[in-house]
Parts: sequence; C-alpha cells; structure tokens
Amino acid sequence: MKFGTAIGIVISCIGIALGATMEGTNVMVVLNVPAILIVLVGTLGATIAACGLEAHIRLPAIYKKAIMPDDLDLPGRVQELVGFAEKARRDGLLALDEAVSDIADPFTKKGIQLVVDGTDPDLVAAVLDAENEAMRKRHAASRAPFMQAGALAPTMGIVGTVFGLVNVMNNLNQPSTLGPLIAAAFLATLIGVGSANVVFLPVANRLKELSEAELHFREMTLEGILAIQAGDNPRVVAEKLTAYVPPKDRPSEEDQAAAAAAQKQAA
Amino acid sequence: MKFGTAIGIVISCIGIALGATMEGTNVMVVLNVPAILIVLVGTLGATIAACGLEAHIRLPAIYKKAIMPDDLDLPGRVQELVGFAEKARRDGLLALDEAVSDIADPFTKKGIQLVVDGTDPDLVAAVLDAENEAMRKRHAASRAPFMQAGALAPTMGIVGTVFGLVNVMNNLNQPSTLGPLIAAAFLATLIGVGSANVVFLPVANRLKELSEAELHFREMTLEGILAIQAGDNPRVVAEKLTAYVPPKDRPSEEDQAAAAAAQKQAA
Amino acid sequence: MKFGTAIGIVISCIGIALGATMEGTNVMVVLNVPAILIVLVGTLGATIAACGLEAHIRLPAIYKKAIMPDDLDLPGRVQELVGFAEKARRDGLLALDEAVSDIADPFTKKGIQLVVDGTDPDLVAAVLDAENEAMRKRHAASRAPFMQAGALAPTMGIVGTVFGLVNVMNNLNQPSTLGPLIAAAFLATLIGVGSANVVFLPVANRLKELSEAELHFREMTLEGILAIQAGDNPRVVAEKLTAYVPPKDRPSEEDQAAAAAAQKQAA
Amino acid sequence: MKFGTAIGIVISCIGIALGATMEGTNVMVVLNVPAILIVLVGTLGATIAACGLEAHIRLPAIYKKAIMPDDLDLPGRVQELVGFAEKARRDGLLALDEAVSDIADPFTKKGIQLVVDGTDPDLVAAVLDAENEAMRKRHAASRAPFMQAGALAPTMGIVGTVFGLVNVMNNLNQPSTLGPLIAAAFLATLIGVGSANVVFLPVANRLKELSEAELHFREMTLEGILAIQAGDNPRVVAEKLTAYVPPKDRPSEEDQAAAAAAQKQAA
Amino acid sequence: MKFGTAIGIVISCIGIALGATMEGTNVMVVLNVPAILIVLVGTLGATIAACGLEAHIRLPAIYKKAIMPDDLDLPGRVQELVGFAEKARRDGLLALDEAVSDIADPFTKKGIQLVVDGTDPDLVAAVLDAENEAMRKRHAASRAPFMQAGALAPTMGIVGTVFGLVNVMNNLNQPSTLGPLIAAAFLATLIGVGSANVVFLPVANRLKELSEAELHFREMTLEGILAIQAGDNPRVVAEKLTAYVPPKDRPSEEDQAAAAAAQKQAA
Repeated sequence: MKFGTAIGIVISCIGIALGATMEGTNVMVVLNVPAILIVLVGTLGATIAACGLEAHIRLPAIYKKAIMPDDLDLPGRVQELVGFAEKARRDGLLALDEAVSDIADPFTKKGIQLVVDGTDPDLVAAVLDAENEAMRKRHAASRAPFMQAGALAPTMGIVGTVFGLVNVMNNLNQPSTLGPLIAAAFLATLIGVGSANVVFLPVANRLKELSEAELHFREMTLEGILAIQAGDNPRVVAEKLTAYVPPKDRPSEEDQAAAAAAQKQAA
Repeated sequence: MKFGTAIGIVISCIGIALGATMEGTNVMVVLNVPAILIVLVGTLGATIAACGLEAHIRLPAIYKKAIMPDDLDLPGRVQELVGFAEKARRDGLLALDEAVSDIADPFTKKGIQLVVDGTDPDLVAAVLDAENEAMRKRHAASRAPFMQAGALAPTMGIVGTVFGLVNVMNNLNQPSTLGPLIAAAFLATLIGVGSANVVFLPVANRLKELSEAELHFREMTLEGILAIQAGDNPRVVAEKLTAYVPPKDRPSEEDQAAAAAAQKQAA
Repeated sequence: MKFGTAIGIVISCIGIALGATMEGTNVMVVLNVPAILIVLVGTLGATIAACGLEAHIRLPAIYKKAIMPDDLDLPGRVQELVGFAEKARRDGLLALDEAVSDIADPFTKKGIQLVVDGTDPDLVAAVLDAENEAMRKRHAASRAPFMQAGALAPTMGIVGTVFGLVNVMNNLNQPSTLGPLIAAAFLATLIGVGSANVVFLPVANRLKELSEAELHFREMTLEGILAIQAGDNPRVVAEKLTAYVPPKDRPSEEDQAAAAAAQKQAA
Repeated sequence: MKFGTAIGIVISCIGIALGATMEGTNVMVVLNVPAILIVLVGTLGATIAACGLEAHIRLPAIYKKAIMPDDLDLPGRVQELVGFAEKARRDGLLALDEAVSDIADPFTKKGIQLVVDGTDPDLVAAVLDAENEAMRKRHAASRAPFMQAGALAPTMGIVGTVFGLVNVMNNLNQPSTLGPLIAAAFLATLIGVGSANVVFLPVANRLKELSEAELHFREMTLEGILAIQAGDNPRVVAEKLTAYVPPKDRPSEEDQAAAAAAQKQAA
Repeated sequence: MKFGTAIGIVISCIGIALGATMEGTNVMVVLNVPAILIVLVGTLGATIAACGLEAHIRLPAIYKKAIMPDDLDLPGRVQELVGFAEKARRDGLLALDEAVSDIADPFTKKGIQLVVDGTDPDLVAAVLDAENEAMRKRHAASRAPFMQAGALAPTMGIVGTVFGLVNVMNNLNQPSTLGPLIAAAFLATLIGVGSANVVFLPVANRLKELSEAELHFREMTLEGILAIQAGDNPRVVAEKLTAYVPPKDRPSEEDQAAAAAAQKQAA
C-alpha cells in the first residue's frame, strides 16, 4: 500500500471534479493562466525565499519519495540483527568483520563496523545518534517547502482574488463583464486553497510520517547494535527489538516458541 | 457512560436539524450530491494522501472503538496486582508462574511472564515501555485521519462553495436561477464545517482521550509489575497504585482500614 | 476578589448589551430559539462526543468552582508546616502522629501520615506526586468541555448562519422578507462567537489558572513535608516555603526578624 | 531606547490616521460610543472573567512598566559580582557581611545574605530558583490580560459588527439609512482589530521580552552568587558572567587584558 | 546558492505582477499611498511597540544577512579541528598556543584559548554553551520584528480595508464613485497580505534556518574542542564531527581510507 499518496490525490481530484461538473461548472476553468501565475509562481517564489534554493532543487526527488516511499522491513531487520547477536555470542564480536561487507543498509553497516573496530559503546551511540539527528534535520528541511506552500498558497489565492476584485471594482460601469470578472477573481482562491489542501499539506504530512517511520526503524537498529556490542543474549535482543514491530507484523507465538526452543538448545 | 460519542453526535445533529427546521429550511437540502462529492470525497482523498491507505482501511474499526470503547477497570487491576504482590511475597516470584496463564490482559501477562523468567528489572521496564510507546504511536496514527479531516473538510467546503460561486458568476444574466445556485454553493461550506465539527474533530479528541486513559492504565500496571519484582510490601504496592485511581473509584476508608488490618495480621 | 469570573461575565454582557441598544438594536433578538438550538445544542452535542458524558454531568459543579473558587491560604499553610517542622525537631517525627487527625487538608494529612508511618522519602514523594499528577489530569478533563466549546461554538454559529443563508437564497423572489431572514441568519454567528468569547473561553482559562494555583499550593506542601521528613531546621523550611508565597503576602521583615530571633532562642 | 513601546504605538496610530485621512475618512468616526462599549467593555469583562480581578487592578502599573521599563545594567552587575568574588577570595565569605546592607537589588541581597549565613549551596540555588520561578509566574499572570485581550478584541469586534448588521437587515426598507448603519457596524471590527494589533498584542509581547530579560539578568546573578560561594577565581567568575552580556556591551579587549593583568598580580 | 531569498522574492513578485497584468489590472495601483501608510507604517509602529526600537535599528543589517548569508564551511572546520587534535596529541595541548592567534573564527579562538589556558573542561563547555545560548537569543530577537510583521500586516490590511469601507458606506449616495473607492479599500488588504507572505514571513523563516545552521556549526565546533581537550584520538574526533556534515559534503570513502591509513601510521 505504498502508493497511498498518489491514490489519495487522484481520489480527491476526482471527487472535486465530479461534484463541480454535476453542479454545472466546467472544471477546466481552473486552468486560468493569470490565477495560476499569481498563486503557484507567487507561492513558489515565497517558499524559495523562505527555505532557500537548494531545498527546491531536490523537490522532484522528494515528490517521488512521497509517492513511492522505500519499504521498511522491520521483521527482516530484527532477524538480521538477532543473527548478528547469535554470531557474536558464538564466535566473538570480531567474527562480524566478514559479515560487514554484506550489509546492504549503510546505517547498519557503519554501526557494525564501529562495533567490530572496538569503538567505545558511548561513542558508537553518539556517532549513530548524530547520524539520526542529522537525517531528521535533512528530512525536516526537505518537507519545509511543502509546509510553507501549504500555509502560503491560500493567502496567495486571496492576493489573486483581491487583485481581481480591484479590477472588478474599477469596471463597475460595465455590468455585463462583472460576472465573468468576479468568477475569474475567485479562481485564484480556488487554486490556492485547492493546491494547499489536496497536494501541499497532505504531501508535507506524508513526508513527516515517512521520516518518523525511518527514524523508528533506525532507533530499533541502534538499540540492536548496542545490545550486540553489550553481548546480550540473542533471545533478549529479539525481545527488545520485537517491541518496535507492530503486533500484526510480529512472528506468531508458535514461531517464537520454536525459536526460543532452538535458542535454549544452542545456549 | 461509554456511549458518549454516539449520544453526543446524535444530540448535536438533532439540535442543528431542529433549529434549521424552525427557521424554515428543509434540512434534507444538505443531501446535495455534488457538495458531498466535493467535500467528503475530496477530504477522504486528501487524508489518504496525508496518512496512507492503511490507516483508512482500519477506519470502521476505529469509529467503532470511539463509539464503544473498552472498559478500563482500574480498581480491578489494582486488586489483581496487589494479589500477585501478596502471592509473590508469601511464596516467592516463581509462584506467579502458574497464575500467568490465567491473566486475561496481554500486557500484564507479558510483564508477569518476564518477571517470572527472572529478567533484569531494567529490561522489564524497557520492554514494557517500548510496548507502550509503540501503542501510543499506533493510536496517534489511527486518529491522524480524523484530525486531518477535521482540518481539511472546512477548506474543502470553501473549495466547493467557490466552485459554486464561479458557476453563479458565469450565470449572472439569468437572475432567476441565482438564489438556488448560491444556496447550493453554500451547502458545501455547510457540509465541510458541519462534518468537521460534529464528527471528525470530536471523534479525534475522543480517540486521544481514550488513548491517554489506556496509557495511564498501562503505566499503573507497569508500576505495579516493577513493584512486585522489587519485592515491595503489598500495602506499599496498593498505596502506590491507588494514586492512579480517581478518588471516587477508590475503596472507602473503612475498606482500606479493614484491608490494612488484614495485611498487618498477615505480615 | 474570588468572584472575578462572575463579575467579568456580567461586565462583558452589560457592555455589549448597552452598546447594541445605543446602536438601536433590540438585544432581545438574540433569544432566537432556532439559532440557540443550532449553536448551543449543536455545541453541547459535539463536546459530549469529544469529551464523554461524564465530564458533562459535572459541569454545574465546575461552573460553580470557576465562579466561587476555594481560597488557597499560602501563608497559613507555610505556618502550619513550619509548626510541624518545629514539633518534629523538638519531639521527633512520631510526635506528629497526634497532630495528623487535626489536619483539615486531605493532601497534607496523607503526606504527614506517610511520614509518621516511617515510609521511605522517595515513596512519599512518589505517592504525593502521583496524587498531584492525577489531580492535574482530572482538572484538565474538567475544563476540556469548555475549551472544546470555545473552539466549536463559533463554527456552529457559522453552520447556523449558512443554513439561514441557504434559506434566504431560496426565497430571493420575496425581497420583503430578505432583511429579517438575513438578520436571523446572522444571530447564529452572534450567539456562537459571543458565547465562546464571553463564557466558554474565559471560564476555560480561569479553570486553568485555578488548577495551576492549586498545583503550586500542593507543590509547596510537598516540599514542606519532605523537608520535615528530612529533619530540616524549621528556619530553613520557612525559607524554602516562603519563596512560594507572593511577596505581598509574605510576613514583613520585622515579623521575620522576630520569628528568627525566637527560632534562634529555641535552637 | 526604553520608550520603544510608547513610540511604536504613536507611530502606528499616526500611520493609520494619516492614511485614513488621505483616503477621505474622518478618523474621528472611530470614537463611536456603542462600538467602543461593545468591543472594549466586552473585552475587559471577558478578560476579567478569564484572568481574575486582581490582575486587572494592577493594569495601570503594568502599562507603565511596558512603556517605561527598568534599566537592566548587565555590565554593572557583572562588575559588582566580580568585586564580591575578589573580596570573598581575599578576606573570606564572611567579609561580605558588611557589604550586604549596601546592595540595592533585593534578589542579589537575599542571595549574598544566604551565602554569608553559610547556607548550603544547594539550598541557596533552590531558594533563588524558587524566587525566579515565582517571578516568572507573576509576570505571566500580569501579561495574561493583554494576551487574552489581543485574542478576544477582534472577535468582540465581530460581535459588534454582526449586531450592527442585524440592525441593518431589519431596516432594509429604509435604503437611505443603510450606508451609515453599515459604516457604524464596521467600526466595531475596526476598533477590535485595531486595539488588538496596535496596543494589546504588542504590549503583551513587550512584557514577555521584558520578563525574559529580567530572568536572564537574575540567572546571571544567581550563577555569580553560586560561583562566589564556591570560591571560584574572580577571573573565572568574570569569564562565566561575561557570556551573559551581549558582545556590544562587553568591555573591550584592552580593558579585559588590563583587568586580567591586575588580577594575575593580585593572585 | 546563497541568494535564495532575494531570488525567491523576485520570482514571487514577477509571478504576481504578471498574473495581475494578464487579468487586466494595472499592478501600479498597489502604490497607493494611503493604503501603504496604514498597512506598512501601522505595522512598523506595532512591531516597534512589540519588540523595542533597538531591534529595528538593526533591520537593514538583518535584511542584508537574510539576503546574503555567511558561508558556513563545515568540512573546512572539521579539517581545522582534526588538525588541532593531531597537533595536541603529538605535541601536547600547550602547543596549540601559537595556533590560537591564527584562528579566524572568534568562537573557535575563544574555545581553543580556554583549552590552552588549562580551564576546567566543564567550565569550557559552560562558557561556550552560554555563548551559543546568547547567540540563539540574539538571533531570535533579530527575527522577532519579521515574525510580528508577518502576523500583524494582514490584520493591518483589514484595518485599512474596513476604514475604506466605512468611507464607502458614507458615500453610498454617489454610486459612480463606489467602484474606485471599494477598489482602493481592497488595496490595503492586498498590501498587508502580500507583504506578509512575500517578504515578512519568508524572511523570518529564512533567518530561523540560518540561525539553526549557525548553531549546528557551533555545536560541532564545541564538540570538537571538548574532544581535543579530552585528548581523543584524531580519528575519533573526525568520526564524531563528520556526523554533523551532510553526506554529500563528506569526503569520499577513498579519502577517508587514505586519511585513516596515514593516521594509523602516525599513531
């Protein structure tokens, strides 16, 4: 169900377009170039001013990430870390050295490498925490333009509508043109409120949730790495890490019992 | 009084419907298909984009939980935990092993099992804290669509109304149709503001309160389990846990005196 | 000056009513049954849905508390606690046993009783902290309906007004009735905004301040009880606790000097 | 530049009045008694209900403080504390006893007195922290009416305007009076929004900044007193405290070098 | 990409101006002196009242900083600190004395000087933390007028528009002038909303991001200085500090491997 954001935006647009069409409005009127220029270019400029150019160059990549996020395989990671814990308990921490080069995830790799190097546990935690904090800040910077756009677009819509109404008021002596002019003025509000609510704010929220999920994933990994370094019993490592996995993704009780039995035999 | 949410929504709807009817409005006008499509489908799509599809598949279950929440029997739980404390003090922690299988609540069961297994107290606290933190996050994710909908629905109402007014403005030359067209345009605002205030926001708040109550319940349980493991005097366990119980649900002073007397005799 | 809330609501209503009357409006128009039904019953239902029925059954008691709050006699409590400290220092902690039954405040009583019972200081602090935290949560739950009502009533007013305007728009062909119909539609907004700003929000804020004052009172008491248990010099207890008393309520320097002199003599 | 608040309010009023006059509006229309009654008396009543009567009796004193704040002489305080540190290091802590009576600031006086009395350092910190916390709460209570008024006045303006529009709508059959009646109705919004933005919110913000500056001043003082009690080298005391002083108010490098040289000689 | 703020404001203005021109509005109408006086001078006065005169005297310098921020060379700083760490490990902390005078950054210079002077590590951390906290407060004070202006300008726009509408309503009997008068009234809203969204709020946000980046830069520097003082292995210092550098600015793996090899040889 990774495609929630794309599906949601499509559902929302279909709902609005269908409703407007049934009301008798031609939804194509929203493709009003002046209104789009005022609202979308005006908002883009303001978010560049607020968040810097660099954050905007990455925008296409960020949209893509919101629409097609990476899978985070929590049970797989637990299994991987418990495997390392077993290996470390059986053959010593140095035995993990050969496994390091096979680790796909750079964060896990860096952590296990630090452990194999005999780094002080506090320093391992500090370095990996700093990595996580830096990632959290990068993510926050990446979604800042969306949050800003969500807040600014409706007010840019008001700017566009008021500009339009100023135009209307200066043409009060030609009553026949008033209706279409007022309608055009309203389009800016429509575009501003619509783009903020259907695209900018949902994408910003989605990026926040994805960031939190990734941090959660990494916190679990960090806890596992520290437990491996501390020489914890693999069963304890599994117990600690399973608390991070949502109940529905946890292995069933039978699986656990079997694993525990195997564990006891091994111990 | 578990049914507060259902009762409240019904009272609110009756109040609004009665008032509108007395004003001379036919309340059935809100069943306007275009406005409902724009506001409710538009909002649903935006919340899917913001919170992911998975959170929405559980929506019926979450509505049900808000309307019919589980009972949290604090005094019963205190009694249960004090009972375990007495048993543990009398017969040792291992004596709880036989009681574990009879515990209905999975959280208590997991905690007592960990204690019986001789797990380190810090690890017991860490594992159960992680369970609670994970539950808190699951609850937050479950109510996120309601909070998003409460914020988005009124602005979707504005989108619908502005679309309607654009239509009105393009038909200014047929004055006889203006009134009903403007009325129809307003319905979108009505549906957006109404659904947010009568359903989405109250349900979101209710779910937050239920989540906090459940966390409170579990914190009390955790405190009790740790006290049992620490070998605290059952009277001390009761004293500690009773502070979590609202005064009106606490046993009366006589009950307490009797219990204390029984306790002293036993000690 | 306990009656600030009642006095303030009356002043606010008089100001509004007088101003409106001078403008030529008959203020009795706000007693519009449909508008009241939509706004006040609609809001009540929504707050029941949001906060549960139980919080609403206590509403009359909570209104009474906001309007006639209990007096919190900080200097008196300081004097009482310093008296206990002197007695404990002179005759030992057990000498407080006979004083316990005379303590009017249940919180102080419970604390001194725990001290007399020889409870561990950490446990005394934990039990009394838990009492305070529980009180804080009870207070927060008690004012939640007011805060919700303050946020919901204006939007319920908008619901009422939009319903009214829908009615107006469907009667555009009878221009003579338009004015009174629009006026009636506006009344819902008036009732919603007015009730929120004159009653719900001020009462919610007042309850918050009263809750904070009571917590402050209890924190001082807890600090005093722990100091008594620790066997602090009564002068030190007085010094510690006086910092909690606002300067204007503190005993004058001469009083303090006299007390200190008496203290020195006694020591 | 202490008079920023008064100067700012005057500039704001002049800008608005000048602009309105150039537009052709007679700015004296805002002296509309009904609108003022509804908005300002309505707001005053609501803030009394929200914050209690006592906070309002001190209002004139608080306005005066916002407009003419006390000077906070950070470099002077640093110099005073470093002087005490030198005296204490040379002649012992008791030598400060004679200096105590000359200290103008009650907070510094209380702190040095506690040090001279040989009070335990933790208790000195606890008592002075409690003083600061109490001051912070008193300041927050003092600015609460301004913050409430800033939030309530615009909505009271809406109450006034809607009351006026109700009046207008009931007089639709006398078109000639409509313009002035609508204009009068708008005045309530004008007074509400204007008073909130030109007076209430800026004063509330200013009081917050003044409170933070005073707390900062006291934290520096507390740090200095504790350093004196700990017998720190006066140069270290100066180093610690100078970090609290904004760079532009710090003594120049030459001054520091000279002071350091003198210090070395003395040590 | 330092010029993001200037570029963004220009893009936003071009978008709005182009759109408005295509709609047929003469964008020069916004140069309406009465509206500018009410909105911009009114806002300026209110922000002076809220934030004090001093914060406004620095405004041109702050605008300049937002538009042309200093470069923060994180990899360069890491290299500089690792260099010091190597020197300190090879030749002792005192060997850094000669390097101090060449340090360009005053914060680094102060920190290394404190280390060379043999200051206690806790005091080094305390003094530099206090410097950072003071900088954070200075930055917050510097951007306060922008945040206030962003919040106040739109409501000042409403004040201006309502003043204009009051004027309109008092001239209802001259219908021919109504259009231009209403148009002029709307300009105040346009200027208020536009200036807040295109200039004040983006600049305030940009200043916040620049402040956070500078604090991040200084926290890394502080961590490096403390590691140097603690005599950490230069490789560990590099490891710790590299976590603060965004991945794309980090030296490549080969560079690191080469550096590590050189390091091992030296150790």
